[in-house]
Amino acid sequence: MTTNSNPFTLARRAERMNPSIIREILKVTEKPGIVSLAGGLPSAETFPVEAVREACAKVLREAPREALQYAASEGFAPLREWVAAHLKQHQGMDVSPEQVLITTGSQQGLDLAGKVLIDTDTRVLVETPTYLGALQAFTPYEPNILAVDSDHEGPLPEALAAAAAGARFAYLLPNFQNPTGHVYTEARRAAVVAAAQSKGLPLVEDNPYGDLWFDAPPPLSLASRWPEGVLYLGSFSKVLAPGLRLGYVVAPPALYPKLLQAKQAADLHTPIFNQRVVHEVIRNGMLDTHVPTIRARYKAQRDAMQAALAKHLGGVAQWITPVGGMFFWLELPAHVDAIALLPKAVEAGMAFVPGAAFYAAAPRKNTLRLSFVTVPPQKIEVGVAALARVLKEAV
Amino acid sequence: MTTNSNPFTLARRAERMNPSIIREILKVTEKPGIVSLAGGLPSAETFPVEAVREACAKVLREAPREALQYAASEGFAPLREWVAAHLKQHQGMDVSPEQVLITTGSQQGLDLAGKVLIDTDTRVLVETPTYLGALQAFTPYEPNILAVDSDHEGPLPEALAAAAAGARFAYLLPNFQNPTGHVYTEARRAAVVAAAQSKGLPLVEDNPYGDLWFDAPPPLSLASRWPEGVLYLGSFSKVLAPGLRLGYVVAPPALYPKLLQAKQAADLHTPIFNQRVVHEVIRNGMLDTHVPTIRARYKAQRDAMQAALAKHLGGVAQWITPVGGMFFWLELPAHVDAIALLPKAVEAGMAFVPGAAFYAAAPRKNTLRLSFVTVPPQKIEVGVAALARVLKEAV
Repeated sequence: MTTNSNPFTLARRAERMNPSIIREILKVTEKPGIVSLAGGLPSAETFPVEAVREACAKVLREAPREALQYAASEGFAPLREWVAAHLKQHQGMDVSPEQVLITTGSQQGLDLAGKVLIDTDTRVLVETPTYLGALQAFTPYEPNILAVDSDHEGPLPEALAAAAAGARFAYLLPNFQNPTGHVYTEARRAAVVAAAQSKGLPLVEDNPYGDLWFDAPPPLSLASRWPEGVLYLGSFSKVLAPGLRLGYVVAPPALYPKLLQAKQAADLHTPIFNQRVVHEVIRNGMLDTHVPTIRARYKAQRDAMQAALAKHLGGVAQWITPVGGMFFWLELPAHVDAIALLPKAVEAGMAFVPGAAFYAAAPRKNTLRLSFVTVPPQKIEVGVAALARVLKEAV
Repeated sequence: MTTNSNPFTLARRAERMNPSIIREILKVTEKPGIVSLAGGLPSAETFPVEAVREACAKVLREAPREALQYAASEGFAPLREWVAAHLKQHQGMDVSPEQVLITTGSQQGLDLAGKVLIDTDTRVLVETPTYLGALQAFTPYEPNILAVDSDHEGPLPEALAAAAAGARFAYLLPNFQNPTGHVYTEARRAAVVAAAQSKGLPLVEDNPYGDLWFDAPPPLSLASRWPEGVLYLGSFSKVLAPGLRLGYVVAPPALYPKLLQAKQAADLHTPIFNQRVVHEVIRNGMLDTHVPTIRARYKAQRDAMQAALAKHLGGVAQWITPVGGMFFWLELPAHVDAIALLPKAVEAGMAFVPGAAFYAAAPRKNTLRLSFVTVPPQKIEVGVAALARVLKEAV
């Protein structure tokens, strides 16, 4: 008998997988007393604990067996109906509940999109920079990821059109993108969809932050402009609670059956208990009163960070004040490497995420992301002041 | 502007995906009043509703923010510790909690195993017949699936050894397999592990039913015999409730990091609320009293079906009385096609799953699966009697 210390052979795709850079970064920042502006978490203050508690009790009282048994891969029918109605009302999308697939967080939507649409070495277009979790979700399917030139209004339509040939899709985050916080204008949305449509380039539109606007809702979704060409991803993580892992995909009818088969193979179905609880929480319009409280809270937090940045980093760093979402995106002087700056910042008592983590190709090293939603205003200023000190030393 | 009615191009792997045959079959059987012995669901009578209710309330009282926030991809640390201790006690496995990855049902464990271990056209070995959900999970990674000759004690060790060259792993279900209900003997376990080890053939051991033994526990796990060569999958679906979607993978340390990265890309983490609730339910030994009640219930159900089969199908069909799990596996006379028989059975008021669905290669068409756990004894006899009538007509 041979001894095999490790008989496993990894798939080629596994060689491409890497630990989340942010995850590794956050380990460095796990230090008592540090002001971490590095996190990507929503504020736990916004979680509707009492409503979840009541919904759990009600679901287990009224439908205990159904809530604890296996369920349909498509998701809980009343929740799918709610999603379709919500998207009609808020995103101008004429969607049938039959197009809605409930997913285990919208991260799973990204995985399913990759599984169904990406072949080895096929092209996938992303923004510059883009959401790191999407790069992680797509990478195992071995695409050739191409970063499309983008400005603060989104990808440049001509760049998108120029890169479209053979691309399986472009992955776009029109609303308060993680990491930049930028939002596409109405004109850019129209131009992006026109460019995609003219090239037959499908879009995967990811919208986890769209409801978190401060003064006015962003323009309508890309999906509302080209229903048969856009796979739309939504989430309950930022408006209710991420720990329940509930998201959804809205797919054109031609694509839905394959996504459903991929979903079934991936985890049979999203926990039906969670689906029923969330439906119970939101079914009577709860989000209409709850989401405005999140907006008000995040706006005040945004104001606090804006004031701290203006006070301590005016003239040193550059940023566009976000009008929704959870993040500021800072551009530092050109020669400053944010990765090299991080240990010094941690030493000084604060943490951020270096922007380089979010680039599919050549990173702009003089960028960083700050979250403004989880740390109270006074500490935000302490953190920003510490960042300013180490940055001024580095400049 | 071109009009694109469907601009999406499917990945090659998507062409291989198919709707679950069983799912399609079950649609046929959705008829009021039918006695369905076709389902693969555990009995909802066994769900510990009150314990789940109390645990939900406690978790939301004591750790509401942590239970509703994002969490670690590895899983809830106390639950991982519980799993490691449980496997030590019941499966003879010397496992560190660091080797435990909590998954969104054990179906996700199958998907992750496929993602990390299968390259296009590499060989994967399965039993004959095998679990359909595993075939669905592996297929998108485009393996060359090879069915290994098996008898009622499991795969033939010499057949396993003969097929091992270049295989990425063999997928095995030693305990009360779905669909056959068969269990590997002690001698077969030893021989299977010896064959695999001698060939350097990794094993994926799936054990969702192992705790559901009736008179005596099955022999120890394959993983306990070759820790560094076996990826072990467990589940809470059959001992608590499937609707919470909680399973786990135990990986050799050399394999763990890649599975973790694949998990993170797939859905970030399994709902932490569910993990904390289940941990709260089981932390004080609840399963030690709860699982015996499931065993007793299922054993009585097994007895009812055994009696009905002996009465109505003795001499017509053949079966081995299962000593655990949820299923009887029937072999009909050689010329009877169970797929052709199904519509007649439904017409007569009962449903089963044709065995052909569970074969990776040439199916034995004269087989079928009956679940004995969800239908009360009296109805079991009604269903079996109806099956006997249509079968005798067909013979």
